[in-house]
Amino acid sequence: MVLVSGGLDSATVLAIARGAGFACHALSFDYGQRHRAELSAAARVAGALGAVDHRVVGIDLRAIGGSALTGDASVPEGGASGPREIPITYVPARNMTFLSVAVGFAEVIGAGDIFLGVNAVDYSGYPDCRPEFLEAFAVAAARGTRLGTEGGEFRFRAPLIRMSKAEIIREGVRLGVDFAMTHSCYDPDATGAACGRCDSCRIRRRGFEEAGVADPTRYAAG
Amino acid sequence: MVLVSGGLDSATVLAIARGAGFACHALSFDYGQRHRAELSAAARVAGALGAVDHRVVGIDLRAIGGSALTGDASVPEGGASGPREIPITYVPARNMTFLSVAVGFAEVIGAGDIFLGVNAVDYSGYPDCRPEFLEAFAVAAARGTRLGTEGGEFRFRAPLIRMSKAEIIREGVRLGVDFAMTHSCYDPDATGAACGRCDSCRIRRRGFEEAGVADPTRYAAG
Repeated sequence: MVLVSGGLDSATVLAIARGAGFACHALSFDYGQRHRAELSAAARVAGALGAVDHRVVGIDLRAIGGSALTGDASVPEGGASGPREIPITYVPARNMTFLSVAVGFAEVIGAGDIFLGVNAVDYSGYPDCRPEFLEAFAVAAARGTRLGTEGGEFRFRAPLIRMSKAEIIREGVRLGVDFAMTHSCYDPDATGAACGRCDSCRIRRRGFEEAGVADPTRYAAG
Repeated sequence: MVLVSGGLDSATVLAIARGAGFACHALSFDYGQRHRAELSAAARVAGALGAVDHRVVGIDLRAIGGSALTGDASVPEGGASGPREIPITYVPARNMTFLSVAVGFAEVIGAGDIFLGVNAVDYSGYPDCRPEFLEAFAVAAARGTRLGTEGGEFRFRAPLIRMSKAEIIREGVRLGVDFAMTHSCYDPDATGAACGRCDSCRIRRRGFEEAGVADPTRYAAG
């Protein structure tokens, strides 16, 4: 099981899992925003990097996410988000929700290893991107599923968790990932070209610079 | 935060939470199956029992649930399910997914108490209905959210977890719940009348008998 968002982190994770000899089932989420460019990138990534299959689960978090803007919700600071992304990016416990679905899918297909591209460097403000969370969640997942009650366990593998964006890019290049097929921008134009200005674009662009790797991203003309 | 399914368990939980003085935000899930009768029952229950609001989050688990029938998935035995319900009922980690969304919603609205109607008596075969799971999940939820990192915690309250169906019904009656507005049947007819034959109907019917309470359920003529 590999969570594939269509971004460069999860593409690198898929390449790592494949490189380690795993048969990989890719899982993506359609949670409203950005889904066209992201999900088509996820499908390209899953296909190009040899996933056995690729499934997309729809979750409409807008019913609760909207209140983050209108209520007394504490909106996390920092992290990668553009102005149009706040209502969705900032839904708390999003990773927890995605991981829960992943655990369900893993149990269905009999997988014990769940790979994900979380990163505690660029996203240090997100509690559900940290190792302590993943450890606790693994315990809950074991207790809440048949696999765990039979003595098995889920292994959450987050190989990027302590890597910088530049290190991730270099690792992906080493494994032959074509980052041109990945999508990171929060605010692409109608053709899918990246804006180059949002937080996600800036982190990505700087990563390529620091890695000394030519940036294959197609940026919008403006 | 109260998870409200439209069934009699969660209606009783909402009444218990209201009776304890909580301002209750009701949360339901539209995950494909049974949603019309269940979700309209959930809306009735939330309104009649004085919830502050009622939100419905759509999750399309069919993308992963389908494989439980067609693949090598281990299908849990026992529990309440009718023949038309298997693909959805048996999605592993469903409660974990719902709880994750609930944690996100709770964080958005600043709630620390999450009430849910899980029950370890009727659903003993479901690992994610057991106290050990809820305890582990609470730890993960605290570590994965802002509330937890600020020293707070989520309190998962499952007041029915050790009660029989008859005890739940008696408690609901004591709190003034009109069970006629709840829906339990997995296979209702077009008018929403209960079939009286599926596992869920049988457990419910027997509960009313054992509780010595007149069953207000509207059963289909056939």
